[in-house]
This record gives sequence, C-alpha cells and structure tokens, in this order.
Amino acid sequence: MDIGIIGSGRVAQTVGGKLLDLGHTVTISSRDTSRAKDLGAMGKLPSADEWAAAQRADGADAAAGSFAQAAAAGELAINATAGAGSLAALALAGASNLRGKILIDLANPLDFSQGMPPSLSVCNTDSLGEQVQAALPETRVVKTLNTVSANVMIDPGQLGEPTTIFVAGDDAEAKAWVTRHVLREWFGWEHVLDLGDIRSARGAEMYMPIWLRMWAATGASALNIKLVMV
Amino acid sequence: MDIGIIGSGRVAQTVGGKLLDLGHTVTISSRDTSRAKDLGAMGKLPSADEWAAAQRADGADAAAGSFAQAAAAGELAINATAGAGSLAALALAGASNLRGKILIDLANPLDFSQGMPPSLSVCNTDSLGEQVQAALPETRVVKTLNTVSANVMIDPGQLGEPTTIFVAGDDAEAKAWVTRHVLREWFGWEHVLDLGDIRSARGAEMYMPIWLRMWAATGASALNIKLVMV
Repeated sequence: MDIGIIGSGRVAQTVGGKLLDLGHTVTISSRDTSRAKDLGAMGKLPSADEWAAAQRADGADAAAGSFAQAAAAGELAINATAGAGSLAALALAGASNLRGKILIDLANPLDFSQGMPPSLSVCNTDSLGEQVQAALPETRVVKTLNTVSANVMIDPGQLGEPTTIFVAGDDAEAKAWVTRHVLREWFGWEHVLDLGDIRSARGAEMYMPIWLRMWAATGASALNIKLVMV
Repeated sequence: MDIGIIGSGRVAQTVGGKLLDLGHTVTISSRDTSRAKDLGAMGKLPSADEWAAAQRADGADAAAGSFAQAAAAGELAINATAGAGSLAALALAGASNLRGKILIDLANPLDFSQGMPPSLSVCNTDSLGEQVQAALPETRVVKTLNTVSANVMIDPGQLGEPTTIFVAGDDAEAKAWVTRHVLREWFGWEHVLDLGDIRSARGAEMYMPIWLRMWAATGASALNIKLVMV
C-alpha cells in the first residue's frame, strides 16, 4: 500500500520504518527534507532525505517529500507531526490531496512553551483530533496510538502482556479498517477499544499528563495501560 | 481511628461504610443532614442522618454532622464531595479544623452544566487537588482514588487482577502513610504509583474524560487500568 506520512520526526521515522518492513511504500515529509533534527539529550535524527536514502539502500520503497507530496502519494495518510505544528502541516498537505482518504492522527497537542511538564494547547471542550477533522471535513480522521510512544505503537508485544489501545473518529468504517489492518494485522494490537466519535479524542489527548507522570515516576523504557473490567 | 468525611453522597457512604466495617469511627457530613439525595435513574440515597442511624443500628460507630463537625472529629479527613462543591464545602469545614491533618482528596472537578459528557471545571495548568491544597496550606492533601468509582476504591480485588492506583501530593510522609494504611491495608490496593507533587493531580483528574469514555464504550460494571511496563 502507498502510505503518506505527514512529518519526518521520531514518530514518522519509527512508524515509517515498520510500514516499510511490512512491504508498504512510504513517503515521509517535511518543510525541508534536508534538515536533520537535533533532539538534544536524545541525540540527532537523520533528515527526511537521509532516512529515505538509508531505507532505499536496504531495498525498501521509501521517499521523502513535501507535506503535499506525501499526502498526494498516500492511499492512506498518517499525521505524525508534533501537535503544535499539525494544523499548519496539514494545511500545507492540502485538503484536496487528502479528500476521501483515511488520515490516522497520532499527534498530541503538547505545549512545551511554559516548560516541563508540558500543558495541552487544546483540551477539555475541544481537541486536536476534532480540529484536524474540522479542517479536513472530507477526510476520514481516525485518532489512535497517541497514547503510547512510537516504539510501542509498532511493537505492543514488547510489553509482555496485551495492553489497550484506543480509536476515536466519526467514520465507523474507517475506524474498523484501521483497527483490523493497521492496529491488529500490521502492528499486533489485540485489545482495541473504540471510544466513540471524534470528540472522544479529548479523552485520549487529556490522558497525556498522567502518561507523562507515569513515565517520570517509573523510569520505564516502555509502558502502556491495560483496561481491566468486570 | 476517628475519620471525618466531608460529604454524604454515594462516595462518602460507600467509603464510610467500608471504614466502619474496618472498625473505625466515621462522621459523614452535609449542609443538611436530613436531606435524602435523588440520584435520578440511579435511585435515592439515604440522608446523612438516615445512613448514620442505619449504621449505628448495625453496631457501627457512625455519626452525621456539619462539614465543620466532621472535620473537627476526624484525625484523618476525606474529601468525598462532588468536585464542583469541594472548595465551598472545605471552606465550611474550616482550615483550623483540618490543620496538620491528612486530607484524602477523592474528588473530580466534573462540570455537568454543559450536558454529557461532562467537561472539567479546572484542568491543564491547574487542578482541583492544587486548589484544595492552596486553600488549606496547613493541611496535608493527598490526591488518590479519584480515578476509580466508589465501589472499586474500597474493593479493587473485584477486578480479578491487580490494577494501578495513583497518589499525588506535596507531603511525602502523608503519601506514604495513606499508601501503607488506607490503600494497601484497609482497601487492598497492591499497585500504588506515586505520580509526584500535588501538581500531578492534573494528570489524575484529566484522566476523567477517557475514563468516562471507557465506561460508555464497554458497559462494564467495574473497571480500572493496570500499568504495564518494561
């Protein structure tokens, strides 16, 4: 499948790499595909161009391009930008390039401008997921995987027992397709819970503060939650 | 132990009943201890007076009084009011009656005024837990148990496997005491995670929207999350 990823950061490269491993064609994207990203204490990320070249050298069908090129190339699109830049990046990607397509929204509206821990730039009575859907009314937005780090998104099995991942969105068929193919078949998620329409992205995004606190409190290298119920 | 519960609703009666079963002395409290509460589709709750009388008839050491009477009577205090009314109730309880004491804050700042699902009346850059601590600077506030329903607070074993409960607060000794005695010994919580200072109550309270969505999506009679990590 041809998959266009809006973004070229750590999440885009991790998810893109997994999709290439599965045999898909992947275009990652950036305003400047030649720019490497400095992640501070976490090291440096290759530029989109460097990443795509390295993947191609391994025989994978990878490309780097503009947001619009990735959106146009993809039969399926993925928003893997940082939440603060998502709406601007998707505007550049172009509503016409995303019309009728499923857009998986992985982003969280984290606001680091006031220091750590970050707050959310939108929450409570609105969400980034809703803003993305409102900006792209003819695109089928599915909010999912934003509640785990990139390495867990593509490899939930590393946690040693099944944990829970959420989907939210207005298009039931799109959620079912993403659940069946992307989450279960491609990435190995067994427990997928449909939270409801795109407004339920508020819940998935407002989970970020406790998620960040759980990371800080445990020092785990990977974590997620499992819904337990009777 | 003498325990004063601020509030007389479902949470107060459930937690109070468990504390009485454990042999403690409990005062629940209300502006009007003679008033029964209509919970709509969930039926009626006995008034504080009726509840205390029924508990005494069973041989338990229960009383009903004003917020100030409960606060003064308790060696340990518990805020079991609805979040929208917590600050007003605690003002009536009186800072002097709570000075130096541990106050366990169970409340969530749910705002039902705009319909369902509720939003939060405070979140993101502040929390009810912080507001309670700021209003009662000489009280040792421990935010905990707000992430589960009342029946799970006092009986986590019903879920069939250990799940995770959080504590947050500025006073490390108070958190340790609550963790050891109230959570582990009295209520049976095995997995207690200290999220950090009282600002981490933001995370515990902002978990409410996804918690409410999980309830709606599953129809479970009891639920909680288990932190899974490597």
